[in-house]
Amino acid sequence: MKIDAQEIYRSIEDIRLKAPVVHNITNYVVMNNTANALLAIGASPVMAHAEEEVEEMVNIAQALVINIGTLSERWILSMFKAITRAAQRDIPVVLDPVGVGATTFRTKTARDLIENGLPTIIRGNASEIMALSDDKAKTKGVDSADTADQALATAQKLSETYNCVVCISGATDYIAEGKNIIKVSNGHPLMARVTGLGCTASALCGAFAAVENDYFSAAIKAMAVMGIAGEIAAETAAGPGSLQMHFLDKLYRLSEQEIASRLKIEG
Amino acid sequence: MKIDAQEIYRSIEDIRLKAPVVHNITNYVVMNNTANALLAIGASPVMAHAEEEVEEMVNIAQALVINIGTLSERWILSMFKAITRAAQRDIPVVLDPVGVGATTFRTKTARDLIENGLPTIIRGNASEIMALSDDKAKTKGVDSADTADQALATAQKLSETYNCVVCISGATDYIAEGKNIIKVSNGHPLMARVTGLGCTASALCGAFAAVENDYFSAAIKAMAVMGIAGEIAAETAAGPGSLQMHFLDKLYRLSEQEIASRLKIEG
Amino acid sequence: MKIDAQEIYRSIEDIRLKAPVVHNITNYVVMNNTANALLAIGASPVMAHAEEEVEEMVNIAQALVINIGTLSERWILSMFKAITRAAQRDIPVVLDPVGVGATTFRTKTARDLIENGLPTIIRGNASEIMALSDDKAKTKGVDSADTADQALATAQKLSETYNCVVCISGATDYIAEGKNIIKVSNGHPLMARVTGLGCTASALCGAFAAVENDYFSAAIKAMAVMGIAGEIAAETAAGPGSLQMHFLDKLYRLSEQEIASRLKIEG
Repeated sequence: MKIDAQEIYRSIEDIRLKAPVVHNITNYVVMNNTANALLAIGASPVMAHAEEEVEEMVNIAQALVINIGTLSERWILSMFKAITRAAQRDIPVVLDPVGVGATTFRTKTARDLIENGLPTIIRGNASEIMALSDDKAKTKGVDSADTADQALATAQKLSETYNCVVCISGATDYIAEGKNIIKVSNGHPLMARVTGLGCTASALCGAFAAVENDYFSAAIKAMAVMGIAGEIAAETAAGPGSLQMHFLDKLYRLSEQEIASRLKIEG
Repeated sequence: MKIDAQEIYRSIEDIRLKAPVVHNITNYVVMNNTANALLAIGASPVMAHAEEEVEEMVNIAQALVINIGTLSERWILSMFKAITRAAQRDIPVVLDPVGVGATTFRTKTARDLIENGLPTIIRGNASEIMALSDDKAKTKGVDSADTADQALATAQKLSETYNCVVCISGATDYIAEGKNIIKVSNGHPLMARVTGLGCTASALCGAFAAVENDYFSAAIKAMAVMGIAGEIAAETAAGPGSLQMHFLDKLYRLSEQEIASRLKIEG
Repeated sequence: MKIDAQEIYRSIEDIRLKAPVVHNITNYVVMNNTANALLAIGASPVMAHAEEEVEEMVNIAQALVINIGTLSERWILSMFKAITRAAQRDIPVVLDPVGVGATTFRTKTARDLIENGLPTIIRGNASEIMALSDDKAKTKGVDSADTADQALATAQKLSETYNCVVCISGATDYIAEGKNIIKVSNGHPLMARVTGLGCTASALCGAFAAVENDYFSAAIKAMAVMGIAGEIAAETAAGPGSLQMHFLDKLYRLSEQEIASRLKIEG
């Protein structure tokens, strides 16, 4: 697996050209930012959660992103309807298991979605990924402990068991597909002070997966673009408020040259 | 119909002076931006959707804005309760049929709201307006095809059938009341890369309609102010993130001189 | 009660160090901003409202913030579950009775939450605080009349009856604990043009209360920090859009010197 700036930029151009519909069933906190990030990169976000319409909405989508950040019983039904339809249509599904491990309800829901929905890409922070298979893993709400290294074994096991790509976000991002692991070291610590940038990363995985058959590559590219846009934004930001704004501006204008000069990828 | 900058500015001053309560039953994605846009122009936004309280909330409102962006069965009940009470009180009702045409559920709900709720102003993009009466009209999620011209016939028919003002947003906005059509050509393409600016336009229609008896004029003024604030914001924006911020700043400070120097209205 | 800049800054450092989990059951309009403000000051926000998980989420929290801005029947059940568990765990509970007085549903819910949930801190604008005990108090939606002085008697009565701290936000903030009243005169009028800064103030009360045993002090410090960050942000803002951004940036970077040079506290 060799991914370079040229290939990443070509995928961005593909997103801008095709404007794929990315259907999100996501949490209330980040809906606005997620939609804005997808628009900035060039995709067409749709947010819809009603049982009555999720299947029809999946029918016009090129990717589905499911995020359990603010769960409720009714929405879980919709998530399953959507993920089932997405599987029938063979479009990629990204699962963001926000806060899994914090409550039994989240842990059970996330595991059910994985076992029965078979997502294409799972993206979370280290403690969330660990909590997907380890009942003793603790998560402090939705924030990540810096335990990415420990989460790698879980990621690989999940990837092999469910035949999916698993992505661990953190200071270093790890993207695993079975035995293959890629590290992306872009990003900036200030990003952790903006709510929902993890959710945005999942949504971008959806956008890249919508235009690419290789979902491992799609996840790697999404994480690289997140990190590079985030670090450029952070360099001119006076704090988390302006970081969010600069981040959206940069997603909109990211150039191949900026990617080439900053990309930190290994594996 | 002759609307000039002086008249538009007088309405803005009226909104700032009277601070009308605009009650919104709107989608999760844009609630924050909608409230902020209404505050910036000088109105008093209220967001409330519970069946138990929507009628009482309509009682203290000077306009009601209904937006179907993230529908669910329960909210539809509240929308009907609110729209019925608004009709009893004879306050203006703006309907934003977000994503109509994308799913049967949305199409049915939007048509029901029009037939039974008789909104005062309907605002959507071209594909949404067409989908209100044409089952074959296709909408790509919530984004508009540039088919405004084709939507005009539908707009006029809707306007005559339901005795309402119909507003088609796009590169050029068309506002129709029966045979009368006004074109507003303000705005900037970057606005389409910020989620919810269409919803904001609908909310501003509510604010202007709250202080004006002529709802055709109110819709025209709202669209002109949207477009002018948007194009000024876009000129200094580095991308969609800063556009959203500058837009709110400009709504708050828009001057009669700025309106006069930019207003592009015909018809 | 003597609270100075040094003591306020020490609490901010405490929040940054301990990163307390603040569990919010809040309204859709402000969830994003509330989470961002808590992250900016150094806390760890969690948003969760499902009946199935709120008690478990309270178990990992150091403070609970309940905000009735966009109520519904199901959420009220969750609010009671959460507030009951918080009382069992003896962690502070902040109640923000948004829009109380506007509808019977809100008024009843807010009063029930106070009588049965016994919150630690209640924060609202003057008309909201008055509406908590006076059926004739009118609130114009969620915006405050400048009637803070008249609300003080209510605040003191509530404080004594329910053994809680009551905070009235406005041009001048009043924080009452029984007979003790502290006035904080920081802030800027432009803050009223940004949606949800009152809700942010309540969330910050939660963050300070999470690291401090004296909830009266916690509320005073939170209001002072809100006001100081807001006035610094307003001085460089071109309008309400940039105010929101600068406010988050400033919360993240507020220095002891800035607090010392601006703090206006009496009582």
